[in-house]
This record gives sequence, structure tokens and C-alpha cells, in this order.
Amino acid sequence: MSDYPEASAAPVEAFEPPYYVAVFTAVRSQEQSGYSETNARMEDLVNDVPGFLGMDHAQTPGGLGITVGYFRDADALMEWRNNAEHRAAQQRGQAEWYQSYTLHVAKVERSHGFTRVHAPQSATAG
Amino acid sequence: MSDYPEASAAPVEAFEPPYYVAVFTAVRSQEQSGYSETNARMEDLVNDVPGFLGMDHAQTPGGLGITVGYFRDADALMEWRNNAEHRAAQQRGQAEWYQSYTLHVAKVERSHGFTRVHAPQSATAG
Repeated sequence: MSDYPEASAAPVEAFEPPYYVAVFTAVRSQEQSGYSETNARMEDLVNDVPGFLGMDHAQTPGGLGITVGYFRDADALMEWRNNAEHRAAQQRGQAEWYQSYTLHVAKVERSHGFTRVHAPQSATAG
Repeated sequence: MSDYPEASAAPVEAFEPPYYVAVFTAVRSQEQSGYSETNARMEDLVNDVPGFLGMDHAQTPGGLGITVGYFRDADALMEWRNNAEHRAAQQRGQAEWYQSYTLHVAKVERSHGFTRVHAPQSATAG
């Protein structure tokens, strides 16, 4: 969890396509024992995967959470998918932590980003 | 905004690949005048796009927001991308509402979902 404040400060920037996104959308259950520790461990582990590019996370309080992982290519994603500790965490997630979730794995075809340089213009300035 | 409570109750389910995701990650600025009304209008508009499949949204309070739109094919996404009212909203977003954002457009290659049927097993049950 220690990475969340930094991760939320700004979205991960656009990379040069093609690359992969793993979009994980989830609603958690009432049983959250051990979730935070495992989540922090997974963040450490995925950072060690060659080709892992970054991660975005947003959580509506009491509602939907979305985590987006960015990977350079299918091999990087495959390595993460096959990680034994990751697989064990997924099984525990189904057994305990998640009410429902969906995973979408997709190849990015185009991307772009925007970062503000100046303060927003006032309504009368336009 | 009226769709958010429903949208957050459960993640959008997995569709049969291929389909497209538009992953929009953003941090908003201090200037939010008119944002909610425009956001609600965009949600209505995108629902009218043939091939629009659904949308997930999560918002960390004071932090990152992630919106994921699901589209049947590239044509559906193109129609939404070219919508004149949508383009005007994007321009206003850059001028006023967003501190920074990234858009990743990607073709889904695989997906799956999970929905709990029973209550989570207790820690001693496993």
C-alpha cells in the first residue's frame, strides 16, 4: 500500500504502443483479513517483473476499485500471470477478498497524455 | 453522475474478445465548475453510441480517477471519438477540469470474471 500515495499523485504516462494493459475491476467482500499485506507484497513482486511499466489504481470508498497494470509485451504479462505467489494470492482473493471482479487483458494501439502547465483558465478568460 | 452508484455496485462483466477498452486515468484540477453536468451529459451520449458496451469508474477521493469504457469494435470507438459534443467537452477538460490525464486505447485479447455465490470462507475453514 506504500506505493498508493505516489501512484495517485498523477496518472502513469502514455507509453509508445504497442504495449499491454491488464485492467482489473473489483468489488471487495466483507472479509479483508490479510488483504493489505498481500496487496503490498504483490506490488513489490510485480515491480521485479522485467517489462513491467507501471500501475494505476483508483478506489471508490465502499464501491468499485480499478487497477491498471502496464506491461511492455505479452512475455512480461505472462511472467506475472505465471508467478506462483501471484497465483496463490489470486486463489485467496476468490476465496475471501472479492465479491466480484473482471480482468480485461488488452494490447494498446494508441495513447496520449496531457499535463497542465498553467493554472486552469478562469471562466471569463476564454 | 446518476449512473455511478449502479456502475459501482459491480464491475462490468467480461465480454467475448475481441472488443476495445478506452482507459482514461486522470487527476482533476481545482476548477470543477460545470464538470458534473458535462460528465452526466457525456454518460448519456455514449450510451447512444451503437457498440458501446458499458463503463466502469472508480475515484480515489482527492486522488486518481479511472474510467474504463468498453466498445464492441473500432468503429464504435471511432464514433464516440468523433462526436462533436464529446470533442468540445475534451477541450474544456484540458482548459479547466484536469491537472493531468492519460488515455490508453486497447484491443482486448482475453478476459474473465468472477462473482461470489457464497459468503467468503472463514480463515479457519480453509
